[in-house]
Parts: sequence; C-alpha cells; structure tokens
Amino acid sequence: MTHPHGVAALDDEPGSSRTAKSPQQRFRDSLLAAGLLIDTGTPGLYGRGAEFEKILIRLEDVLTRAAELSSDLTPGGLGYPIYRFGPIFPRATYEKTDYVESFPDLTGAISTFSGGDREHRALMAARTRGEQWDHFLAPGDTMLVSAACHPVYEQLPSRLPEEGAAADVSGYCFRNEPSPDPMRMRSFRMREFVRIGDPETIRAHRAAWLDRAFELLRSFGLDVERVAANDPFFGRAGKLLANGQLDADLKTEFVVPIYGDAAPATAIASANDAQDHFGQKFSISCADGSVAHTTCTAFGLERTTLALFATHGTDSGAWPSAVKEALAL
Amino acid sequence: MTHPHGVAALDDEPGSSRTAKSPQQRFRDSLLAAGLLIDTGTPGLYGRGAEFEKILIRLEDVLTRAAELSSDLTPGGLGYPIYRFGPIFPRATYEKTDYVESFPDLTGAISTFSGGDREHRALMAARTRGEQWDHFLAPGDTMLVSAACHPVYEQLPSRLPEEGAAADVSGYCFRNEPSPDPMRMRSFRMREFVRIGDPETIRAHRAAWLDRAFELLRSFGLDVERVAANDPFFGRAGKLLANGQLDADLKTEFVVPIYGDAAPATAIASANDAQDHFGQKFSISCADGSVAHTTCTAFGLERTTLALFATHGTDSGAWPSAVKEALAL
Repeated sequence: MTHPHGVAALDDEPGSSRTAKSPQQRFRDSLLAAGLLIDTGTPGLYGRGAEFEKILIRLEDVLTRAAELSSDLTPGGLGYPIYRFGPIFPRATYEKTDYVESFPDLTGAISTFSGGDREHRALMAARTRGEQWDHFLAPGDTMLVSAACHPVYEQLPSRLPEEGAAADVSGYCFRNEPSPDPMRMRSFRMREFVRIGDPETIRAHRAAWLDRAFELLRSFGLDVERVAANDPFFGRAGKLLANGQLDADLKTEFVVPIYGDAAPATAIASANDAQDHFGQKFSISCADGSVAHTTCTAFGLERTTLALFATHGTDSGAWPSAVKEALAL
Repeated sequence: MTHPHGVAALDDEPGSSRTAKSPQQRFRDSLLAAGLLIDTGTPGLYGRGAEFEKILIRLEDVLTRAAELSSDLTPGGLGYPIYRFGPIFPRATYEKTDYVESFPDLTGAISTFSGGDREHRALMAARTRGEQWDHFLAPGDTMLVSAACHPVYEQLPSRLPEEGAAADVSGYCFRNEPSPDPMRMRSFRMREFVRIGDPETIRAHRAAWLDRAFELLRSFGLDVERVAANDPFFGRAGKLLANGQLDADLKTEFVVPIYGDAAPATAIASANDAQDHFGQKFSISCADGSVAHTTCTAFGLERTTLALFATHGTDSGAWPSAVKEALAL
C-alpha cells in the first residue's frame, strides 16, 4: 500500500498507514511527551521545558566560546561587541531593511489601542457579539523582529573605522510559518555573528565561519552538511532573487537530515553574504567612502537544540559522552 | 526659579533649568553612556549591552535558587515546574484572560500577510507612495504576551489534584507605555512564581513570598518597601476595579525610590492574589470542584536590574561586596 506522503516505511504501527502520522508529527509528539516542548494549541508556537532550555543555554555558552576563539576575525582582534535586543523593534528600522518587499508572508506587524472610554466600549461591544475587534486598534510604531541582526545595523556609524565593525547579537525572531513540523517555529531565538566592512573582509569572515561553524556542529555529533541555498523570497519576482542568490553563492546553509530520507534536510544555521544590502539601506560606508558590505553567521538556537534531540534522543543524560563534553553537559 | 516639573533641585547644572533634563532622562543618559542599554530611537525600546545582560542573568540565577528554597510552598514540596514561553502566544489564550477588557491601552496585537502576488504589488505600491500598508495585513492568531504567567493557565488540568499546582515562568512581556523613563520599557522580561489551588493555599503562598521577596530584594542593597497597589485598569470603569483591588488588599508592590523624592517610587516586583479570575476564565477547578484561585509573585527582570544600577552605580565592579555576594558576582 502506497502512503500518500511517502512516509509509510517510517511508521511504527503496521496496518495503520491511513491514519499514520508524518515523521514531523511523530518527532513533535516525542518532544511533547518528554516535556521538552509544551503545546500551546496553536501551530508553530511552543513553550519550552526545563531540559530543553538547559540544552539551549549550554549551546549559547558554547557559541560564546566559539566567538571568543574567533576574535581574530573581528576589528583589532577585540572580539564581537554584544548586543541583545528584545522581540520587537522600531517600525522605522524594519522599514529600512525592506523586509516587507521580500518576505511579506513571514512578517508580523503590531497594532495598539489609543482610544478612550467610548472607543473601548465599542470594541468590547463588538467582542461580546463575537466579532473581530482589531479594527479598533491602529498600526503601532513597532514590529516583530524579523532576523536577530536587523536591529543592529541602526547602531553602526555612517562612516566605519578602517577595520570595520562586528557584532554578537541574539534574540527572538518571528516568522509566520505555522507548521506541524517542530523545526519550523514561528517564534524562536537566533544567535548571529555579524561583520561589517569592505567586500574582501566580509568574504574572508564568511569563509572562516563556514569551516568553524561546520566543525562546531560536527562536534555535537550532528550529521551536518553545507549546501548552497537561498532565502524564501516571496512570489514570482522572488524566484528571480532566489536564483540570483544561489548563482552568486551568497548563502550557505548547515543542514541536518532530521527526518532521514522522508523529508529534505533542515537548516539549523547559515552563513550569509548580504553584499551591500544593509550598507545601502542603513547608509553605512567604509572608511574609504564605499558602501559597506555585511555578512552574518546565524545559528537557529531552537533548531540546533532540536537537531540534538532528534539525533541523540530525548534523554540528554544518555547522549554520547563526546557530545556531552562538547556541550559541557 | 521654580521648575515646572519640580526637579530643579536635582539638576547638576545651575542656571540651566529651562532645558534641564528630568531625573528619568538623566538616568537614561547614564545607562546609555555606560553601554548598559542601547538606544533604538523609539521610546521604551532598548537593546541591552553585555554588562546589563550579565547582571540580569545573575538575577535570574538568584531567583532560581530562591524558588528552590521555596519549594516548601509547592505541591508536595517538589518545587516549581519550569515553563518558558516566547514573546507571543495564542490569541485564543489572550482572549480567555479578558486582558483587553481591563488593559486595552497596553495590548499588542499581531497582524500578518496572507495575500498573493497581486496583493503584495498593491501593498508595495502603497508603501512606495509613502502610505500606511497595514490594511493589506489581517489580524493573526497570535498576540504579544501580556504577562509572563498568562500562557501557563492553558497548561493546567481542568480538575487539579488535591495539592493544587505551581509554575515557574519567565519570558518577554509587552506593555505599550512609551516613556522617557527607562524603568518603563515596552518589551521586558518578567519572572513569576505561580501557585494554583484553594483560597487558603493561595493566601499562604502569597504571604510567604511577601516576606521572601522582600528579604531577597533587601539583600541586593535596594531601599525597597512593600505598598498596597492596584493594576492600571483602563478608563472610568477601571477606577472602580482599581479601588476594589486596593480595598481587598490583593496586590502588593515592592517599590524602590529610583528618583529620590522627584518621582514616586517604582515597582520592581509584586505579589498578587488574582482570586478566581484565571480559574474562571480557564475553567480550572480544585479537587473538590470549587473554582481554583491563583497567586503569582512577579519580578520585573529589567526593572530590578535597573534598580541595582540606580542604587549602586553603573559600574558593577564597584558595587558593595555584600551586594556582589548576594548576586554571586
């Protein structure tokens, strides 16, 4: 019997293929059963349990150490200055990134209420009638953070010093992709090591991290591979942008086969050359007046943590000793 | 010369009272100058620097230890189960809290885009004309988290065991109160110890934490006081609710005089008796079938961290040794 989604071979219960769960659903079930994730009842939104959070924090610590060991890639070898942003950022900064041009479907905009008693009574009356009440709100001056590095470009000087700049950023990001796959959360943390400077510096930084991130993820016992990739640019025009990004080899993803052969391997990190995109949008120049280029190496903290549980099992106490050692568990 | 805001006495520069900055602005300036906070250009939204984040994480660790020492207040003495939620949560859960009835002005609702190429072209055309484009989005199924404990009530069983339940929650909250006062952030983290059960259990839990939180905050060298308080219920009807809350002594705030006599002391934590509000809204019953009561002791992580810097100075290396010891610095 052929299963419509081609996952019958992975089903634990023979004969139940009509109602068989996908590998994504089964991974999700195992995470919920182990208390690693907490179901909120809404696709792509999870709470985290104690054990999940412990591993994620260890991962952050390892990345902090990796950044220290990579300070040779930073201006003057002084390391990555730390920036931590919350989950929302100024709409004015979001607008500068032009994110809505390429990723409208992933965007989250925030509305707020600034009416008085009368407007509130009308809102409550609509709500009591079971109607939507968002039209009593108005677009606010903040947006959900689209990528961890987006708030940082606003912090850079318009004219960089000779050696350029660097940043270590970490924070919650929003991507509106409701999915039964726990690897695709809508709200998740991303850690990024950003370098800003001339094109040659940027290429060298990215090349070095392509190897360092690969070695690091391998040290966690993950079956990681590096693949040329593209961002999920929206719509028909987006296909051209995606092809251009692929052709120019500007994005490399670190992917892990979470679901074996049943689904494409999932990206848990990436090393990106944004060329002069952010330099243009945020008016950042190199010391010689040319538009600054930027690169970031980004680690999906939830995805990397989940890849560890998918690879080594939901009981971290039983993980291979080399993996525990790499994560200082 | 009388300063219109009554802060002339605190001004460092005599004769400059016309352009004198408020104590709030001067505290903000000192935090930005020290790299503790990072200005995003939008009121109430900040990035955090390395040193600020280090202190906040130490504070979290101290609270973890305080919770362990308070496990006598939890079901079976087993401690507070850990729940970590992201900055957004299901709209369905938000609706259950009835938050929009009492705090519409603090609420943040999320809109998303689900159109195709044509709608996206129209959005982009409006944006190019400099028009607002939020009307191309639609209300989504998520909201910004209004209080750290709000997502947790959905996780509780409809019928509690005899000993009730408890939770340790921590996460980003949103309150739309743009302000020049850095103590009033719009996006901040809150740590809460929640107890759910019969009214007597709830009163005892709150009473114990009133003392424990007080001692803890005192151990940080903070000039903290406990005061009866009320939530900022919205509008004219809200005044009645606020008075009722005050009269029934359901909310105690831990306040610190951040700005001396120049402004009211600021709450950095609170111990609250929500009576049967969440039990009703989330249909949670005690073992005997009666509606469950809830209490939470909530620590504003940014506010407590800022109170430390306001009290002991922006250089944590120079803090009193007893304070450093209390925070394991």
